[in-house]
Amino acid sequence: MARTPLPPLLYADTAASSDQLYFSGVEVHDPFIAFGVGRRKLTAQSALEFGRVKKAGTFDILVPLEKWRARAEARWPRRKITPAEIIAVLAQAYGAKGFRVADDFPAAVFLRLKSLGIRLELADGPLFPEREVKSAAEAAAIREGNRLSAIGLAAAEKILRAAKPRGRKLLHGGRLLTSEDVKFAVETAILRAGGLSLNTIVAGGDQACDPHDRGTGPLRAHDLIVVDIFPRVVKTGYFGDMTRTFLRGRASEAQRRLVATVRAAQQAALHRIRTGVDGREVHLEVTNVFAAAGYKTTRTKTGAVGFFHGTGHGLGLAIHEPPRLNAIFPVSLKKGTTVTVEPGLYYPGLGGCRIEDVVQVTDRAPRMLSNYPYEWELR
Amino acid sequence: MARTPLPPLLYADTAASSDQLYFSGVEVHDPFIAFGVGRRKLTAQSALEFGRVKKAGTFDILVPLEKWRARAEARWPRRKITPAEIIAVLAQAYGAKGFRVADDFPAAVFLRLKSLGIRLELADGPLFPEREVKSAAEAAAIREGNRLSAIGLAAAEKILRAAKPRGRKLLHGGRLLTSEDVKFAVETAILRAGGLSLNTIVAGGDQACDPHDRGTGPLRAHDLIVVDIFPRVVKTGYFGDMTRTFLRGRASEAQRRLVATVRAAQQAALHRIRTGVDGREVHLEVTNVFAAAGYKTTRTKTGAVGFFHGTGHGLGLAIHEPPRLNAIFPVSLKKGTTVTVEPGLYYPGLGGCRIEDVVQVTDRAPRMLSNYPYEWELR
Repeated sequence: MARTPLPPLLYADTAASSDQLYFSGVEVHDPFIAFGVGRRKLTAQSALEFGRVKKAGTFDILVPLEKWRARAEARWPRRKITPAEIIAVLAQAYGAKGFRVADDFPAAVFLRLKSLGIRLELADGPLFPEREVKSAAEAAAIREGNRLSAIGLAAAEKILRAAKPRGRKLLHGGRLLTSEDVKFAVETAILRAGGLSLNTIVAGGDQACDPHDRGTGPLRAHDLIVVDIFPRVVKTGYFGDMTRTFLRGRASEAQRRLVATVRAAQQAALHRIRTGVDGREVHLEVTNVFAAAGYKTTRTKTGAVGFFHGTGHGLGLAIHEPPRLNAIFPVSLKKGTTVTVEPGLYYPGLGGCRIEDVVQVTDRAPRMLSNYPYEWELR
Repeated sequence: MARTPLPPLLYADTAASSDQLYFSGVEVHDPFIAFGVGRRKLTAQSALEFGRVKKAGTFDILVPLEKWRARAEARWPRRKITPAEIIAVLAQAYGAKGFRVADDFPAAVFLRLKSLGIRLELADGPLFPEREVKSAAEAAAIREGNRLSAIGLAAAEKILRAAKPRGRKLLHGGRLLTSEDVKFAVETAILRAGGLSLNTIVAGGDQACDPHDRGTGPLRAHDLIVVDIFPRVVKTGYFGDMTRTFLRGRASEAQRRLVATVRAAQQAALHRIRTGVDGREVHLEVTNVFAAAGYKTTRTKTGAVGFFHGTGHGLGLAIHEPPRLNAIFPVSLKKGTTVTVEPGLYYPGLGGCRIEDVVQVTDRAPRMLSNYPYEWELR
């Protein structure tokens, strides 16, 4: 007979911990106590957060933090009262003998709870493994995130099309068009549509060869420009994550071959994704396409060139969730899992290209949760 | 003789851990390894982040994560390789016997490192106590954050002034003016100026009586409207944090008395702040002003009314840092510390008012790091 798992215990804020957001259903920006009591959920909240959490959160039991802090003080008059002491008195009052905690549970609280006799088990993996499989409502929320990404991509494409190539320069409203201009257009459009796009990437030329360079300064005509947009839906907290690579002007044959190869690799990966497939096999599809086309990956002094990131990652309440689709980690794709599929190639001098969509795993072809054209050469 | 403290060890991403951002000087959005080697700083980075971190970060030693993962695999061929194993091989190679870790260091890594024989000490307080005292450059960065807050306040004031009261309605461009409209104006203005304003609060009437309600729907004429703006400077990562309470239309005498009392409490608190003062004394100034004016604080079913949050908090790379200025925690204010000063009063029916500025502690009157007028009744 399977042992009943211990109820979860969390001590985190919802900005740092998507587990806490998943459990609570409401954003709270300072760390707070939450745990399971049977099938019910309990939280201790200060007067400052109490009303809002009661209204917007998914808790069954809300207790005033101040009262339970006072109880902990009464019980240990000479001990410094930390969250651990408050958790301990709450655990006793609600008959909890022990808890399951996330691997990133704060070490200080963990050790103190142990010393107070509370049994704790590390999740040794996700605290809520069920987060990996998305419900229909969650898939819809991620689709909405990608609708916001697509709004951002449209805003970027529009300003790039409006810009005029003059030699290698790109002029817009009489000035050089910059990464910042495009990001501003993207982020404003998303803000207006109910999203929040942080750390938007609009990187051209060699800047795009560092996949996490966000891009700064003037964009150039005839350069590949990577636009990677991963907004959060303000209402639900779920993310979108899409990338397109544009070029304003005329592409070289080498650029065209690069982009076509990345798109072919993405299609090969998409074709491979279904229930039960190992993430490493999906990644292998991509590296095979690149190898067959003669694109080499090598380490350099400051990083690498070629294809040197994973093919994708889970997406939901966090921008990077399990599973990872890469060469290292064995994962069996579950039905209902949502992942990004984002191969890329990066060669300083030639430029960088990444194309990214989001899909949900099914028993057959994956369900696309993102939608934007692949036209990229904006003449 | 004082014992030399163990060097710090971090395993976190910079979005979740401002300690990691402080140590690294560069944003990285997945957890990564960083530690001190004597006075130097080491980090292990994947090929994906290596180049960017080398260029933008403050590390003296960068090692490729993939290589050290392989070394850990070679050393423990049958063990699952986690960050702890990689840290252990790195620690050995760089002669580190032990580390000091933050209280929120991930418990799983902590326990695994212990089992690998690495000595670990919990900070039992801030990992970098020096973060509390801001350098001139940090104070300038916080001032810049508040310049962005002020830009946001100006945008809010402008749209409120432009709106026309019609009875209790507030019309703008022929429609009812909403919290969302004002937030959009605020956030766009800040984005344009190089900041990022998350979770901006524009809450009117009873909504404002829950200090963390961000506000939704139509704003009303003759209502108090709390506008709390805490943007991050994109370039440096430092925050601003300012609040003003506006009213479009005509205030009642009760509203005027409420606002005047909050402002008087803020001035009393500001007057009390200097090196060596206990944060609880600053908070007491506020509660004394409120008590003397007859404003009572009481707990209700869904929270509280009156003044039920702290007077202020440290501000820097995190929006909430030590020290807290409240009734609970004893803190001696250090010279150079930056804190918010934000008393408020909240009574459903009458409305909420909060006024917030940021100061740096000196041996005399505190240095104002925020600047915006206190005119609030917009007739």
